[in-house]
Amino acid sequence: MEPLFIGVDVGGMSIKGALVTDHGEIRYKSHKKTDASQGPGSFLKDIKDLLLEMIEFAKNHDGVVKAIGFGIPGVVNNKKGTIDYAANLYMEDINLVQYLSDLKLPIYLSNDANVACLAEVRYGAAKNYKNVVLLTLGTGIGGGIVIDDKLFEGCEGKGAELGHTVIVVDGEPCGCGRRGCFEAYASASALLRYTRDEMINNQNSLMWKYCKGNIENVDGKTSFECAKKGDISANFVINMYVKYLSEGILNMCNIFRPEGVLLGGGLSNQDEYLVSKVRAYCAEKNYGYKHCPAPDILICKLKNDAGVIGAATLAMEELNSKE
Amino acid sequence: MEPLFIGVDVGGMSIKGALVTDHGEIRYKSHKKTDASQGPGSFLKDIKDLLLEMIEFAKNHDGVVKAIGFGIPGVVNNKKGTIDYAANLYMEDINLVQYLSDLKLPIYLSNDANVACLAEVRYGAAKNYKNVVLLTLGTGIGGGIVIDDKLFEGCEGKGAELGHTVIVVDGEPCGCGRRGCFEAYASASALLRYTRDEMINNQNSLMWKYCKGNIENVDGKTSFECAKKGDISANFVINMYVKYLSEGILNMCNIFRPEGVLLGGGLSNQDEYLVSKVRAYCAEKNYGYKHCPAPDILICKLKNDAGVIGAATLAMEELNSKE
Repeated sequence: MEPLFIGVDVGGMSIKGALVTDHGEIRYKSHKKTDASQGPGSFLKDIKDLLLEMIEFAKNHDGVVKAIGFGIPGVVNNKKGTIDYAANLYMEDINLVQYLSDLKLPIYLSNDANVACLAEVRYGAAKNYKNVVLLTLGTGIGGGIVIDDKLFEGCEGKGAELGHTVIVVDGEPCGCGRRGCFEAYASASALLRYTRDEMINNQNSLMWKYCKGNIENVDGKTSFECAKKGDISANFVINMYVKYLSEGILNMCNIFRPEGVLLGGGLSNQDEYLVSKVRAYCAEKNYGYKHCPAPDILICKLKNDAGVIGAATLAMEELNSKE
Repeated sequence: MEPLFIGVDVGGMSIKGALVTDHGEIRYKSHKKTDASQGPGSFLKDIKDLLLEMIEFAKNHDGVVKAIGFGIPGVVNNKKGTIDYAANLYMEDINLVQYLSDLKLPIYLSNDANVACLAEVRYGAAKNYKNVVLLTLGTGIGGGIVIDDKLFEGCEGKGAELGHTVIVVDGEPCGCGRRGCFEAYASASALLRYTRDEMINNQNSLMWKYCKGNIENVDGKTSFECAKKGDISANFVINMYVKYLSEGILNMCNIFRPEGVLLGGGLSNQDEYLVSKVRAYCAEKNYGYKHCPAPDILICKLKNDAGVIGAATLAMEELNSKE
């Protein structure tokens, strides 16, 4: 019987699961649409149903589930197995491991960006790297850290909140309660803010045309697409975004001096167009000039599968480390 | 014969050395006054002379030197054993290990704040902690990181430059070439800047009296002493300093979620007066509210011996890890 690991990628509107081999191959994938805002009761039941479906599938296909891993968009306690706080899941102080105890399987939790980083290091864009920092550029900024080929999560799994490091003291308010977080300046949401602000300042910008005259239509592509067409104000927006993103990346470089910096999330679809600009900015401001190696800046590869593969890999590695 | 380890704390004006046991006890201490600005030739010779003196002392006192460790105020390459760049030592691309190869002893290098952190975790204020971030508040800000009871230095030993993380994009210029570094806002030098600026704005401040009317007399104690006496403008200076220091500390907490944050360097002599204010600021802005443990904020204990004890401990641990 093939040993398999269930990886679960938990989101507010959908729960994704996969049966993953110890080589990171997906044997089976499934998901459940859900609505976390309806309260944890039905949400947890959806999780359990999905798990039972996958355990059953494994049984019927010559496999055996060895452990379950979760990627959670929020603050967990990886020792107690609790979801301590996850705003998007409307959850506080939920003991997930206890709730699932009748499955009689080892269960491990981590932050979603952490497991994505693990997946990319094991099977994705950073396969040959042992020291990596990952940033997911979405609504917020998630952070993942691999040191010496091992996931680094901080005490209780509560570190690696790289989006919540202040880069502008007294700057824009952040959801975390502080002001000026990296997330408030280099997430996709920040890019939208820069785009809208610049459009209001510049009625002639091509971005208005791209949005059909309606600022509500601004999305993460607006400024990129128009900058590529030579629009000066779109270019201004991109340069501002690149600057804040790069300053945050340089901070992580000076702390971790990683071999690679991984960019994921929606904005990473801009690929080389974005990365080449970030690379140029970082090269110019690298600490210690020629004396410090500049990290490779890479785009995540596993995309939507990173979460489930990473969560399953976490479960496998945690289990192995205990045996 | 007792196994001993030489720890060397290298500064631009003086080189300190100690023979240290594998329990962190100092058996013998010595130092050499020197002047790095005279070029690396005589400076390196001073280092070698100091080492020979200590090896000789060990021999004559029933000891045997097993390895040598260095704490260097600058960028090293801990794999090659080179001092890559150390502005205060006027050094660039110096292969220290090669220069000392005729001593036929294992030699290890690290940044000075790194070894200080190691010393405090092994024998000082953070003895019971396994995950610690250290900040030395002096002319600049040095950083040291211990993760899982092990020194974390980043690739080639070039990470942990915690003072060179930007907290104010486009802010005050920093010696590293960027603007707005933590060091430019929370070092002792930054405190002096705040003090002088406030004195110029406030001719009635008690700080003028304390400085005998001469702004050149401002030092790291000026604002603290006057704030303790109730001077409003001195208090303003301290609050500003505490704010920037705490914002940087909170960043490190959100990244590392350490059990302890250690403060060293000249300003740490302000002890509980400073720490209580930092603690209050950090408690209020802690990420994840009650869901994340707030780290203990501690003052370094080993003071001037941290460098030599830490460097010797580095040598011992590196040697042991290779055996």
